[in-house]
Amino acid sequence: MNVLIIGGGGFIGRKVAQSLAARGNLRDEPIDKLTLADIAAPETIEAPFPVETRACDITDRASIDALIDGDTDVIFHFAAVVSAHAEADFEAGMKVNLDGTLNVLERCRALGTCPVVVFTSSLAVFGGEVPDPITDFTIPNPQTSYGMQKAIGELLLNDYSRKGYVDGRGFRLPTISVRPGKPNRAASSFMSSIIREPLNGEPAICPVDEAQEHFYLSPRRCVENLIKGAELDAEDLGMQRCMTMPGQRLSIRQMIDALTAVAGPEPAKLIKWEEQPEIAAIVRGWRFDYRFDKALALGLEADASFEENVRYYMEDDLPKAKTPA
Amino acid sequence: MNVLIIGGGGFIGRKVAQSLAARGNLRDEPIDKLTLADIAAPETIEAPFPVETRACDITDRASIDALIDGDTDVIFHFAAVVSAHAEADFEAGMKVNLDGTLNVLERCRALGTCPVVVFTSSLAVFGGEVPDPITDFTIPNPQTSYGMQKAIGELLLNDYSRKGYVDGRGFRLPTISVRPGKPNRAASSFMSSIIREPLNGEPAICPVDEAQEHFYLSPRRCVENLIKGAELDAEDLGMQRCMTMPGQRLSIRQMIDALTAVAGPEPAKLIKWEEQPEIAAIVRGWRFDYRFDKALALGLEADASFEENVRYYMEDDLPKAKTPA
Repeated sequence: MNVLIIGGGGFIGRKVAQSLAARGNLRDEPIDKLTLADIAAPETIEAPFPVETRACDITDRASIDALIDGDTDVIFHFAAVVSAHAEADFEAGMKVNLDGTLNVLERCRALGTCPVVVFTSSLAVFGGEVPDPITDFTIPNPQTSYGMQKAIGELLLNDYSRKGYVDGRGFRLPTISVRPGKPNRAASSFMSSIIREPLNGEPAICPVDEAQEHFYLSPRRCVENLIKGAELDAEDLGMQRCMTMPGQRLSIRQMIDALTAVAGPEPAKLIKWEEQPEIAAIVRGWRFDYRFDKALALGLEADASFEENVRYYMEDDLPKAKTPA
Repeated sequence: MNVLIIGGGGFIGRKVAQSLAARGNLRDEPIDKLTLADIAAPETIEAPFPVETRACDITDRASIDALIDGDTDVIFHFAAVVSAHAEADFEAGMKVNLDGTLNVLERCRALGTCPVVVFTSSLAVFGGEVPDPITDFTIPNPQTSYGMQKAIGELLLNDYSRKGYVDGRGFRLPTISVRPGKPNRAASSFMSSIIREPLNGEPAICPVDEAQEHFYLSPRRCVENLIKGAELDAEDLGMQRCMTMPGQRLSIRQMIDALTAVAGPEPAKLIKWEEQPEIAAIVRGWRFDYRFDKALALGLEADASFEENVRYYMEDDLPKAKTPA
């Protein structure tokens, strides 16, 4: 079993790699080799099997051809230019998110080996004038170029699977919280910061009202779902290979209450409430009323409560110096 | 007002051209020039304005660049490799239906003139495990590569419109009946043949049960809707530029009754009932329970009854020798 993670230097890619290393197998077979590829060769990880790290430019078909060969059994395709970047630089988004995905799929078609391809899509495929709730049968109506490119990725994955060129499965990821690391410029960045920074003993700003709802999943559960997704039988996927990954609809208040329930009253005192109208307006435009019946029926799971998300962050990602002694 | 029809040699392209010639204007402006482009330069048409005919390979960006210039105000983009062809030759479908559409849109983006682009999509975007009825908010879940390529065209048209690169509007066409000309190898071919051939005094075979339902539109109404579609105000289109064109859900029996109501009892006697299990199976897999609220609200129309479809064929397309004296 040879596994390839494209986007293996990213946050989800590394967590999937670590989880594979801990398991040692995938789809009931021992892993013989794991390849981590990214635009720059990623750091390696500790594993009970050989780990190769590779630099790969997904926009360059020759680079993809050199990366994927007839021995590649499972490909996790996570590489993408993110939302704000794809919106600001239309060509970069088209090249990485559309041409890049096509390069992966076309390489698989040329090989004729029908590898499993796990694709991360996004809830950004939804939006516009479409009514709530958003189900597995709701039309993608993206309001960003990133969402358009991901929606096209879903259509390609489905058809390349129907034709037998790949054995694809795609998952629209909820907003991941608590995401480790530093805040970034994404409008959703605060949705991790308001939990993460206080747990790290640092202040954080909440730029929206505490009643604001959104749709969340922990990194740990996300990785479990992606690996379960890779292990699903093709026959169980039916005539649509892409689906919304389970998540929880929560208000900011519910998240902070969970923080307090797990870590006591001190962390929440580090949250400053400073309404930022631009961020609040963007977030109000996002949808949060999602159904995910298909993924649930296939055994994928949401977190049971946001207390789990807080606890997972403390167990998996809290900087060691900050871990309670 | 300069108008370009890509796919101007096809059946719908020529009918749109003839309708524009009869009107002389589009979007409240006189037409200064009409260009008909196809893979081979199409025959010209009679018109009160200059008509240019051009050969163009839409899979070749340079050929598209030479075709579309900054003076092009409205583009009807009808060029496509059809369903059976795209299914048999995956690469041809990808090149014409996906790369070709991207070439048109990318040329418009490069020009920066935001022309109106009228795109013909297909009900083949729908299918799979999605429940009826199929509304404007139903997920495309194509079960053919042609449907996948058309669904991608819709997503591209929407996003290029949102970004202001084109002013797009896309319409998923019902099955057109009564289609003029000869039968072809499409599974839907009989849906015109069983009306057209008897009106031409020739025998026809109906390969499915008379109770089989499907979703139909006449060529005349289709062309009217496409021209109305070109004339819609961008503001009225909302956040989704693509929609199902109105049509009628009819059984074969209802179509034949309409034939008899318009043309008397003789034509229907020329229909032979010969169940063809392969065709019947394909057609049973098609959907017919469509809603088209958005297009109706925008003023597009279905035929009032199938008697209209029969009458339009007799008025517009019946070979002259067969027209009652």
